[in-house]
Amino acid sequence: MLSIFEIIGTVAFAVSGALTGIKKRLDFFGVLMLAITTAIGGGIARDLIIGNTPPLAFRHPIYITIALVSTVGVWIFYRYLFRLTNVILIFDAIGLAVFTANGARLAFAGDYASLSVAVSLGVLTGTGGGILRDIFVQEIPMVFRKEIYATASIIGVLAQYYSRIFFHGSWPLYICFATTLLIRLIAMNFKMNLPVPKINNRDVNDNF
Amino acid sequence: MLSIFEIIGTVAFAVSGALTGIKKRLDFFGVLMLAITTAIGGGIARDLIIGNTPPLAFRHPIYITIALVSTVGVWIFYRYLFRLTNVILIFDAIGLAVFTANGARLAFAGDYASLSVAVSLGVLTGTGGGILRDIFVQEIPMVFRKEIYATASIIGVLAQYYSRIFFHGSWPLYICFATTLLIRLIAMNFKMNLPVPKINNRDVNDNF
Amino acid sequence: MLSIFEIIGTVAFAVSGALTGIKKRLDFFGVLMLAITTAIGGGIARDLIIGNTPPLAFRHPIYITIALVSTVGVWIFYRYLFRLTNVILIFDAIGLAVFTANGARLAFAGDYASLSVAVSLGVLTGTGGGILRDIFVQEIPMVFRKEIYATASIIGVLAQYYSRIFFHGSWPLYICFATTLLIRLIAMNFKMNLPVPKINNRDVNDNF
Repeated sequence: MLSIFEIIGTVAFAVSGALTGIKKRLDFFGVLMLAITTAIGGGIARDLIIGNTPPLAFRHPIYITIALVSTVGVWIFYRYLFRLTNVILIFDAIGLAVFTANGARLAFAGDYASLSVAVSLGVLTGTGGGILRDIFVQEIPMVFRKEIYATASIIGVLAQYYSRIFFHGSWPLYICFATTLLIRLIAMNFKMNLPVPKINNRDVNDNF
Repeated sequence: MLSIFEIIGTVAFAVSGALTGIKKRLDFFGVLMLAITTAIGGGIARDLIIGNTPPLAFRHPIYITIALVSTVGVWIFYRYLFRLTNVILIFDAIGLAVFTANGARLAFAGDYASLSVAVSLGVLTGTGGGILRDIFVQEIPMVFRKEIYATASIIGVLAQYYSRIFFHGSWPLYICFATTLLIRLIAMNFKMNLPVPKINNRDVNDNF
Repeated sequence: MLSIFEIIGTVAFAVSGALTGIKKRLDFFGVLMLAITTAIGGGIARDLIIGNTPPLAFRHPIYITIALVSTVGVWIFYRYLFRLTNVILIFDAIGLAVFTANGARLAFAGDYASLSVAVSLGVLTGTGGGILRDIFVQEIPMVFRKEIYATASIIGVLAQYYSRIFFHGSWPLYICFATTLLIRLIAMNFKMNLPVPKINNRDVNDNF
């Protein structure tokens, strides 16, 4: 059974993928493929990493169905969506937060429950779909670019880890989601960027 | 044992990879590496997805040998091959059709024989090698670009699925191959493209 | 336990990733993510290929810790590092040699000890991290570009294979490392490139 939580994340990443595809002037199937890749990419990476094969997204058509429905919705309404500022980034942030929380929860539930595995798995699951999306349309993935991104994901996993001491059930999952999303949105809003090194062009080895 | 069918697919993808490498002015080993990656990429992705490790292509040197021989052939004759129109696309289409058919057959033969898994595995195996090839030379992968591509692969898998009701043995495999190849070649020939959204540049959020 | 040998390789790849990130003007966390990806990418690919899940780098935080420390070091001293000629390439060569040797050794130690598997696994482990690094910053991976690269890795694995007849213990590993590094450095120094095909632009099919 797919929780509402996972549906939200899958829709959010599918929308970010579809909008990115439209922005890059792909045709309908290109947009659909990009939406599907973005929506299921992180989960597939997670399942390969923990040896859960075939990955969930291949066994349950519901993920691809959700991505398809989301793409059709975006295809009809994208004119309005593009007017909203930063709409791709907002959907991407929701997807990041949902999949980070889910990836980390899986690590805590498994036999390999160290904080190290949880952070790695949370960040990979959260960022995997977006990395594939950006690579496929020739962009440097967001996680390597300017705003606080992996940082939000890492802090979210830490929040889940420590809140497990005090809370039970799904609370740590939701706390991770809220923490990651909040940090990411605040960073976007205030354009809080980490420092970038100042290098002179003549310092750079151009033979590289 | 490698069937003639698989050899054809491996040669086709190796040729498409080698020609792409030559077009991008890579040296001989760059061209060879790209040919190998294109020829075995889809199969490796398939084997990782179904948990068949180490992947076939790593256990049997025959795949890499075929890619090597194909690359040497292309290296000698590329002057003539480039004069042929769309030759990279035609070899890519043959590879797509062979590997789609093979990937889907494996899904039907396995314990996870739903149509959903077959479509996912067929499309991934068919498109995986080409996606790696295009990513590595800085192109948006064909599957996300203009012409009918994943569509051909999906319809091919459906043809294999339904023809299994009426035919036995290798027939469904060949029907899938023929369907995928035919649709892809027709789409190429008539430049049948799916609609692309018309967006005003001012609608696009440039902060992305 | 992590050998000094593996630490050297992890540091070398982390430094090459961090310097590449700085060159591309990523912020600190972008640089860190790129350093981590470069340092652990090859090992993760290797572990997925041999079905060793979750990969070592996810189970032992030491790899990510080494990449973090290396990144901080690079962040402080990059001004001096960039003045040195070809410094990214030199660190990349050390990483290539270490991970090629380690990947091939694992293949020889496993149940699938054919030369074919050893070469594939050595080359993939050696080049995997660098491929991810280059893909993520929008470069055609070094392994597909001009200088002798995969060739060095392949000859290194062959050296390990044949030296196993005469030497025991860790000697074949070190011989592989020394062979790969030496060939790569000589190739860099003398700009020994393999031939590149001469094609007329009008020969290239521009519809591709």
